[in-house]
Amino acid sequence: MPDLLWPGDERAGDLLDDTRLLGSMVRIEQAWLDGLVAAGVAPAAAKADLPAVDAADAAGLALGAEGGGNPVVGLVRLLRERLRAAGAADAATWLHRGLTSQDVVDTALVLALVDALDRVDAALGRAADALADLAREHATTVMVGRTLTQHAVPTTFGLKAAGWLRGILGAADEVRRARALLPVQAGGAAGTLSALGELVSLAAAGSAGAAADPLAITDVLADALGLARSVPWHTDRTPITRAGDALGTATQACGRIAADVLTLTRPEIAELGEPADEGRGGSSTMPQKQNPVLSVLVRRAAITTPGLVATLHAAAALADDERPTGSWHAEWATLRDLGRRSVVAVDQTAELVAGLRVHADAMAEQAAHAATTGGLLAERDAVRAVAGAAAIEDLDPSTYLGVADEIVRRVVERADRLRNETRRHP
Amino acid sequence: MPDLLWPGDERAGDLLDDTRLLGSMVRIEQAWLDGLVAAGVAPAAAKADLPAVDAADAAGLALGAEGGGNPVVGLVRLLRERLRAAGAADAATWLHRGLTSQDVVDTALVLALVDALDRVDAALGRAADALADLAREHATTVMVGRTLTQHAVPTTFGLKAAGWLRGILGAADEVRRARALLPVQAGGAAGTLSALGELVSLAAAGSAGAAADPLAITDVLADALGLARSVPWHTDRTPITRAGDALGTATQACGRIAADVLTLTRPEIAELGEPADEGRGGSSTMPQKQNPVLSVLVRRAAITTPGLVATLHAAAALADDERPTGSWHAEWATLRDLGRRSVVAVDQTAELVAGLRVHADAMAEQAAHAATTGGLLAERDAVRAVAGAAAIEDLDPSTYLGVADEIVRRVVERADRLRNETRRHP
Amino acid sequence: MPDLLWPGDERAGDLLDDTRLLGSMVRIEQAWLDGLVAAGVAPAAAKADLPAVDAADAAGLALGAEGGGNPVVGLVRLLRERLRAAGAADAATWLHRGLTSQDVVDTALVLALVDALDRVDAALGRAADALADLAREHATTVMVGRTLTQHAVPTTFGLKAAGWLRGILGAADEVRRARALLPVQAGGAAGTLSALGELVSLAAAGSAGAAADPLAITDVLADALGLARSVPWHTDRTPITRAGDALGTATQACGRIAADVLTLTRPEIAELGEPADEGRGGSSTMPQKQNPVLSVLVRRAAITTPGLVATLHAAAALADDERPTGSWHAEWATLRDLGRRSVVAVDQTAELVAGLRVHADAMAEQAAHAATTGGLLAERDAVRAVAGAAAIEDLDPSTYLGVADEIVRRVVERADRLRNETRRHP
Amino acid sequence: MPDLLWPGDERAGDLLDDTRLLGSMVRIEQAWLDGLVAAGVAPAAAKADLPAVDAADAAGLALGAEGGGNPVVGLVRLLRERLRAAGAADAATWLHRGLTSQDVVDTALVLALVDALDRVDAALGRAADALADLAREHATTVMVGRTLTQHAVPTTFGLKAAGWLRGILGAADEVRRARALLPVQAGGAAGTLSALGELVSLAAAGSAGAAADPLAITDVLADALGLARSVPWHTDRTPITRAGDALGTATQACGRIAADVLTLTRPEIAELGEPADEGRGGSSTMPQKQNPVLSVLVRRAAITTPGLVATLHAAAALADDERPTGSWHAEWATLRDLGRRSVVAVDQTAELVAGLRVHADAMAEQAAHAATTGGLLAERDAVRAVAGAAAIEDLDPSTYLGVADEIVRRVVERADRLRNETRRHP
Repeated sequence: MPDLLWPGDERAGDLLDDTRLLGSMVRIEQAWLDGLVAAGVAPAAAKADLPAVDAADAAGLALGAEGGGNPVVGLVRLLRERLRAAGAADAATWLHRGLTSQDVVDTALVLALVDALDRVDAALGRAADALADLAREHATTVMVGRTLTQHAVPTTFGLKAAGWLRGILGAADEVRRARALLPVQAGGAAGTLSALGELVSLAAAGSAGAAADPLAITDVLADALGLARSVPWHTDRTPITRAGDALGTATQACGRIAADVLTLTRPEIAELGEPADEGRGGSSTMPQKQNPVLSVLVRRAAITTPGLVATLHAAAALADDERPTGSWHAEWATLRDLGRRSVVAVDQTAELVAGLRVHADAMAEQAAHAATTGGLLAERDAVRAVAGAAAIEDLDPSTYLGVADEIVRRVVERADRLRNETRRHP
Repeated sequence: MPDLLWPGDERAGDLLDDTRLLGSMVRIEQAWLDGLVAAGVAPAAAKADLPAVDAADAAGLALGAEGGGNPVVGLVRLLRERLRAAGAADAATWLHRGLTSQDVVDTALVLALVDALDRVDAALGRAADALADLAREHATTVMVGRTLTQHAVPTTFGLKAAGWLRGILGAADEVRRARALLPVQAGGAAGTLSALGELVSLAAAGSAGAAADPLAITDVLADALGLARSVPWHTDRTPITRAGDALGTATQACGRIAADVLTLTRPEIAELGEPADEGRGGSSTMPQKQNPVLSVLVRRAAITTPGLVATLHAAAALADDERPTGSWHAEWATLRDLGRRSVVAVDQTAELVAGLRVHADAMAEQAAHAATTGGLLAERDAVRAVAGAAAIEDLDPSTYLGVADEIVRRVVERADRLRNETRRHP
Repeated sequence: MPDLLWPGDERAGDLLDDTRLLGSMVRIEQAWLDGLVAAGVAPAAAKADLPAVDAADAAGLALGAEGGGNPVVGLVRLLRERLRAAGAADAATWLHRGLTSQDVVDTALVLALVDALDRVDAALGRAADALADLAREHATTVMVGRTLTQHAVPTTFGLKAAGWLRGILGAADEVRRARALLPVQAGGAAGTLSALGELVSLAAAGSAGAAADPLAITDVLADALGLARSVPWHTDRTPITRAGDALGTATQACGRIAADVLTLTRPEIAELGEPADEGRGGSSTMPQKQNPVLSVLVRRAAITTPGLVATLHAAAALADDERPTGSWHAEWATLRDLGRRSVVAVDQTAELVAGLRVHADAMAEQAAHAATTGGLLAERDAVRAVAGAAAIEDLDPSTYLGVADEIVRRVVERADRLRNETRRHP
Repeated sequence: MPDLLWPGDERAGDLLDDTRLLGSMVRIEQAWLDGLVAAGVAPAAAKADLPAVDAADAAGLALGAEGGGNPVVGLVRLLRERLRAAGAADAATWLHRGLTSQDVVDTALVLALVDALDRVDAALGRAADALADLAREHATTVMVGRTLTQHAVPTTFGLKAAGWLRGILGAADEVRRARALLPVQAGGAAGTLSALGELVSLAAAGSAGAAADPLAITDVLADALGLARSVPWHTDRTPITRAGDALGTATQACGRIAADVLTLTRPEIAELGEPADEGRGGSSTMPQKQNPVLSVLVRRAAITTPGLVATLHAAAALADDERPTGSWHAEWATLRDLGRRSVVAVDQTAELVAGLRVHADAMAEQAAHAATTGGLLAERDAVRAVAGAAAIEDLDPSTYLGVADEIVRRVVERADRLRNETRRHP
């Protein structure tokens, strides 16, 4: 979905777009219907392959969604009509029985979040690989350490890359945990599974066997969709905020990298360069311009994401009754923006760090200059005086790097563990 | 643009959609080119009608927008190609000269905000009319006044409607002011109008007349587009936050109404009902349900809007250099969401209050019940005791309404002034 | 109130601190009591000077505020006890009659907002004066114009200062407007002025004269406190969000300045320096450091303020019944943070720009370097080619400044108008 | 710290107040100095007990904090003066060597977050215990299930309490995890431990033994303070946002409970009552009022917390250089507000649910009424028709509860596991 107002949006593909979401809803209804038949709750005759929905259906259902307050009322009607038209009257009758709209919307959003988190995880992995390489390669590339914009003491570009990497690895932890905990939603009208319970009882009454267990049927749905089993959580939005927080953490790890790249690609510093790419970074009026567009666009996401994260927490905090009044609806488009933009930001960052041009000479030159004229080693003499030692005449910044190399080693090792680990979702 | 995840989105039509925005950009380039020719800066041969752009162009330009960080680089290239293909080589050459990408994007967003604010203003006007009618009609309809959820003292539904109206009128003030102050953006690469200045000088050198005034040419652009004249404001985002705050104020006025309607349509209270409309408010599983969907969807906007308002303030506060780094880009999609959702929310609210069903009998009954059994008039006796007066046996709540009627009268009068006033943008 | 976690907080003095707020509440109760007596609603014997409250009272009342959900219940009790102890039994009896807690809290917050907005306005004025001086003085000081971090075309420091000034002037407009519109709150229990109405009726019944007009008594309160007259607005929070938006706009204007100063004081650029001040900007470990602390602290406010602005909009949008349930309470501390921090940020900014060290030589050197080696004038040749003119060999950046000087002149003129204007609240 | 504008603030005691934070900073400097001596880096003569700091010191240091941009510069100066005055010149000399201001501020904030998370955890535990009791006790207490404010199908109050409990348990998971991962911060000026490395080398040069390991010395600090060991994380703010997200999750779990209590204590519903407590919930003007103040105040926190969570994500995303420019400073007061308010909100919620008055009769009556007149069982007949079964005449809502009891059992079991689990921080 290329988007004029969110350049790069196409990197997220069809994630969370209307047609794909509707496809997930049909998949959920299919798995549920299959489950009802398998459990003997619905008759064998109700078994049917549900018709697919396409973009035109999506547009129509979106248009009708205001009436019911959500698109499921219309979707169920549409599927039933098509099933009946195809002669599958029993499937039409049994479709959606036991579920409520929120079950279908929530589970479809959860499936989309699985996608979003998996894509973010993969892109974080690519970024981590590139950063580990940069950290290793530049473990002894001396540069100026800057605090509050001013020259502080020497550091290495390897340590800077390791610092970025640490943020990416931390984000990956959050993303994987949130993904693994994403639950199925199946609770019926008010979270009691009342309709399903009634159908189970009626089925049991009409058969010789034992009654099915309604919660077991929801477990079947979870398993079919690859989601965590769960009791209903209509008004407990922790799974949603946990996923939102993880996506926010991923974007912030990228924002921090972009902030440094934007500083270090300034012409007066010129220690880094964005990947050189035909047709990227140009200007509509200035022929000489080479703008750091990837960093600019990542920073854009860094600025917009916190508001989305906050909206999810607010929605969760305002949930009421047995189905939240408006606060549930507030999550939907917020999750789409948060999911898509996170994928885009992490993907752009992975590309950025993979192709980053490191000007080690400029770094060395600046550090030497700062050491000889700017006090970059002033701390060294001050601390030597504490220990009663004389100042050192040699102003080579590479002699005052503390344990930068060891810190790099440890962070890179953690990245390697992540890389080698059998990933849960390879 | 019906949107599965934002039911009711179609109420905003094509506002701020890609094709319409591109259309505005072409309109801006056209007006600028016309201005250059009219001022004698560009030759008469450069005059041409720019080709229109369509949805397919929009998709292509959106896809290419990442390269330049914004869609204008691609748009200018596309327009020049088409002009050349149509034999308008001079127009192709002179197109966009003197402008920079941000001039075009900002002015297009400003034109979109004009639309958004005008549509919101119109819908606020419809809501105000309906509320003024309700306030007048129910100036003596007694109901329970509730504070912190508990029964306080009697009030009237007229006064409640007048309170809602007061919020709507206040929002209309903010919306109109923000709209009137929306400025054109035309500053060239770094806000100095350097390229335009150069072209003006060259034109003057080649002619007998006096040199044109670059700022006068930007005034011509402003006038052609119906915007306020302005010096460049590339990094002063006050016009954007002012518009955003106004839209936020409009939505909050609606959110407050929705909050009350959601409470008062609860079956245990049942003093109000949403407009009865075929196919609205139904459930996918419960045949008896009649959900207050308009209020639910308005409340959704009330919850998501503050995060968007905050994003605009953050973007403005982080603006740097002669063009903001990422914070500018953060505004674009935020404005689209804020603009469209505000139109939808106010439109839904106008429909809600225009068709609101007021159950005056239920109000009267509840008030009488609360007066006789619940202390609704306890304050009256307490305050009478202060003045040394005896308690009153008569527990008719309509005898203790303070100046509710006079407050209603004043607020309604203000609404009438708004209605009769010659609107600046009728 | 110095604050370890908000360095510089003492700049806001006692604004919005507990004791001062309680003082305002006493002032409000006094003016109301005076109004009741003057209107003949309360007997002349009820006239009394209310006792002052001090910090110890504030601590006790704060501790007791949870019980009633706000501090007014306790304050009224305390004042009545002290009045009775001082023999002013009638004043004790008549104190607070006709008001409700929200009237007192809201009006006290409004008085605090008046203070906050006035202080912000004054500091914006100081910043504007200093910036106008800078803009004038440096109208021809050439420097590199930077867009998206990269060198674009030449500009002047005067134009940069004028750009900052434009933001400050825009903020001053918002701040003054919000301040002028701040209304008194006086509506009684549910906004009907029921208790006051009852007292007025009783007084009229016992006298030969005409009944007082309850709304006129609220006008007397407004006048006594220097606030706008108003009907009750218990659940219409527009005045609060308008003030919050204005404060947010002031802080964002400062944040933008800080962003530029932070870039331009980087050692590699070194075109600006923060005011040199004994003991400012030092480090706990590096003797050579001179950190741009004012800009750092202003940027801190730029980052935290949008969340506070959003909270006020959310609170307003969730207001319900005749007194908002929790959303009203959410405003209180939010306004304190927003008010104090805005005063601190603008005051720091005024100091920053008043003492800003401008390194015009460094600017000139950088611009010349960028012109000769970096394409700073590339646009000039490109645009000349459009007009069929030859490139210019002379690479003096001061020859390509467009209308920078005229823009400076216009913005400075606007600042002068502001300065000379008879200010409403001098 | 009772706070007039945040009633209930005293529940958080001295958490995160200035004096306590300074005490933590002294504790950190002490542990670091001890570590230097123990490692043989500083001489034995440098061992000393650091002087305590009191509230007066705190005020002075807060006042001076603007100069250095943080309070550590002043604190180190103060401690050195007092050590020297007490004859501990060596301790004065060696104090703080190897650290930087950010190490001390960050670690002090982390210690405060440990406190905050532990207190929140304890209060969540109390709430969970009370809710588990309610869920068990009311597993068969039938009430109306409400969705989108309207009556849906029957449920039980036990299931509602279990739903609340689920949110509390989920929050406890997040809180404990964030707490366990809170790391020590010790990296020196730019995160390389350069000064410490220099001192270690000098000490090794002057002794026969092997050089100490700088990172091992930071591990000693971590162990002494009970924090997770870590390489420096000056610009990787994941630990801060993780803690912030956890606190936000705790507050949202409480907000959701408050939302339901506010609805169900409405006089027209009256199915719940807040704990009856002398002097709580009164009004300044209406003698009959009994306001649900605990829920109101919890809802206040639910509305203000998302903005604080967002601020932390924004600050993390904007971190730059080797020490963040303003975004670091933005975290401090935000964490104080977030930490204290979370403790208050969860504590109020624990008290609320522990003393909640459940009006089971009113619930039963309302459910029976809704079943006989309002379609509360309409879904049952509809779903029976699907299975070809006849409608049931008996309109007893307790016959249509699905698996409410089994869901209650599962959630309560999870609470019991939490209770019995050996808590890491008992």
